[in-house]
Amino acid sequence: MRQWTLFFWKTTSAAPPTQHIYNQLSRSMSVQTGFTVPPPKSLQQPLSVPKRLLLGPGPSNISSRVQEAGGRQIIGHMHPEMFQIMDQIKAGIQYAFQTTNNLTLAISGSGHAAMEAALVNVLEPGEAVLIAMNGVWGERAADIGERIGAKVQKLVKTPGESFSLQDIEKALVQHKPVLFFITHGESSTGVVQNLDGIGSLCKSHNCLLLVDSVASLGGAPLFMDNQEIDILYSGSQKVLNCPPGTAPISFNERACQKIFNRKTKPTSLYLDMGWLSNLWGYDESPRKYHHTSPITCLFALREALAILAEQGLENYWKLHQENAEYLHKGLEDLGLKLFVKDKSMRLPTVTTIAVPEGYEWKDITNFIMKNYQIEITGGLGPTIGMVLRIGLMGINCTKANADLVIRALKDALEHCKKSKH
Amino acid sequence: MRQWTLFFWKTTSAAPPTQHIYNQLSRSMSVQTGFTVPPPKSLQQPLSVPKRLLLGPGPSNISSRVQEAGGRQIIGHMHPEMFQIMDQIKAGIQYAFQTTNNLTLAISGSGHAAMEAALVNVLEPGEAVLIAMNGVWGERAADIGERIGAKVQKLVKTPGESFSLQDIEKALVQHKPVLFFITHGESSTGVVQNLDGIGSLCKSHNCLLLVDSVASLGGAPLFMDNQEIDILYSGSQKVLNCPPGTAPISFNERACQKIFNRKTKPTSLYLDMGWLSNLWGYDESPRKYHHTSPITCLFALREALAILAEQGLENYWKLHQENAEYLHKGLEDLGLKLFVKDKSMRLPTVTTIAVPEGYEWKDITNFIMKNYQIEITGGLGPTIGMVLRIGLMGINCTKANADLVIRALKDALEHCKKSKH
Repeated sequence: MRQWTLFFWKTTSAAPPTQHIYNQLSRSMSVQTGFTVPPPKSLQQPLSVPKRLLLGPGPSNISSRVQEAGGRQIIGHMHPEMFQIMDQIKAGIQYAFQTTNNLTLAISGSGHAAMEAALVNVLEPGEAVLIAMNGVWGERAADIGERIGAKVQKLVKTPGESFSLQDIEKALVQHKPVLFFITHGESSTGVVQNLDGIGSLCKSHNCLLLVDSVASLGGAPLFMDNQEIDILYSGSQKVLNCPPGTAPISFNERACQKIFNRKTKPTSLYLDMGWLSNLWGYDESPRKYHHTSPITCLFALREALAILAEQGLENYWKLHQENAEYLHKGLEDLGLKLFVKDKSMRLPTVTTIAVPEGYEWKDITNFIMKNYQIEITGGLGPTIGMVLRIGLMGINCTKANADLVIRALKDALEHCKKSKH
Repeated sequence: MRQWTLFFWKTTSAAPPTQHIYNQLSRSMSVQTGFTVPPPKSLQQPLSVPKRLLLGPGPSNISSRVQEAGGRQIIGHMHPEMFQIMDQIKAGIQYAFQTTNNLTLAISGSGHAAMEAALVNVLEPGEAVLIAMNGVWGERAADIGERIGAKVQKLVKTPGESFSLQDIEKALVQHKPVLFFITHGESSTGVVQNLDGIGSLCKSHNCLLLVDSVASLGGAPLFMDNQEIDILYSGSQKVLNCPPGTAPISFNERACQKIFNRKTKPTSLYLDMGWLSNLWGYDESPRKYHHTSPITCLFALREALAILAEQGLENYWKLHQENAEYLHKGLEDLGLKLFVKDKSMRLPTVTTIAVPEGYEWKDITNFIMKNYQIEITGGLGPTIGMVLRIGLMGINCTKANADLVIRALKDALEHCKKSKH
């Protein structure tokens, strides 16, 4: 048992407390209470953030306009002006996704939270879900599906490959899932999945199509409505050059039919579309408090979507395709081998290089970080140790950055050969 | 079926695309695809954020240092410097919570997400949880408990009241829960719960104690270790004057024993402490990618915790207590009645006023917003229509702000009487 004691580690300019306040405080605390943890020394230093060029698979650097928007003073999350900003974000996501879906909003979390929101709202325990698995994102989706009690069926391909309509149809016939999950931009392998025809295929098998576009949105052609994607989500920290913390998501009418006619409540209240649809003005009923949204992140997301709308999706897609090809040529000129052989399957935003023989991938990424303050990364999930990954996304997607990272890699290849260690 | 057509809504400075790129893009898209949604007009206007003094129950205004930190350029979420910042945040939360718990971190979401993280990680399907319910937060906790299949037992009090040790012991004996949830600062009713003795009581009944301190942290005395609280969480957007989007949480060894020896996986992967503990350096194993953390929100949280450490918890508690009493006196001098009768049960951060007879609460809050650009709010959940709520938190906790809101209320009382309509 400790005595309640007031320690003063630091003199402040505050007026000395009155005896009255001591009494008040003492009344509300028992004799067992007392300070045990002093203010940490590590917080006495000012925040230090090094300057980095982020050419990994994400996050990418944030643009100055987005930075300014995210650094603003806040208003209340339930103020009419905030709802107006949320309406503008909704319109921006509708443009980025090429959809007119009314249930379009930003999740208060990372792209991972949006993946969970999609699965948790659509699936009920015991329902079958088919997961296209050719990298880390399929693994994650399967894990979430299992946690919420769905019957998870896996359609597996070697990392670096993608799925054909025949692959998918066969699995749909076999497993009769209510939901099919597939990744558009597989950032762990550098593969872009051709989505054409999958939507109508799923529809004909009475199955909803859920697409992950975290690493592809804004960097590779994607048409939610015309490609008949039922549920689509993305992240903010890739092509949008926005801080992580919000994640665009959209559900079409078929998906709404499913999620608003569930027999059981979703396992998450935080991600429950029943609540979130109201908060984002899905219907005419007054918006009700659900959680405190990440206000500054929403300011930043609005600005990022405004920039995308100004630039134009079609221009952005071309820019990413053009600079990716420019990068690929430069890498091949260095003697490096791209991990994805088929050119049409290469994701324009994230390029994967087979780790060259005679090198440790970590030596290369460390060398480039140390000498150039540039981030490129190794693999993720099934591609760990197999690939190096370079991202050219949004404002970072320039020929100058491609040249810079090629130069850095050339330098690394000269300095990091194992025999030199 | 639509033709693939390139629309140009806006001329940009980008170089005209080459035929090669067109071909490349066309190959990757079928003829069904095409633009259907133009860039939204609402995003052509610059972001507009009005200036507001936020004296509701939260969020509060953010301090200029926190604003500056949150508006910085980012680094990667897996860079060593980011892990160092996370370590500093952990130390700051340990100080704010007065705990030495190793499993101390910030959830990538709002306070609500932290509530869900606590319940989802501790509870397994079929286990009994006892929820102290005297306002909206108990209702939320019960809802989450039911969603994850726990046996939810409720200990109910009228909003505005708090719980005695006798109340709690009786319910623990009756329901034999594995977890007891209680709210320290009930911001929907303005009640502060005396926590002394509850921890040891729970321990003696082999039950974990989970406390919500979203609205009280930094504003009312709280000692996680000495008060034997097993799991504690809070939010960033109240006394800490930090943007919403991260939520401090801590688990002691007893709680870790429970969560790391589960038979089933938690229903959420996003909030799974198995992953998050690793990401926040709980053990010596290398940190693995789990999700992209909200980097700028973490910068802001670090700064907010540094300010709290500089000010000193004991000074902050006194400041909030002193200014709350000053506000209470001013309100009573106006003829208003405080909702919480017992002075020792009044939450220092959020004050509740009984809606005065002859007034609509919404007329009063609207009047003050319109004429003073100050937010005060009505009730929440069970107190809707019953109370007005005023928050004086962190940098907003000044006598000048108390004077201002009292003047605004006086003005509102003169102008909003129903008979005048």
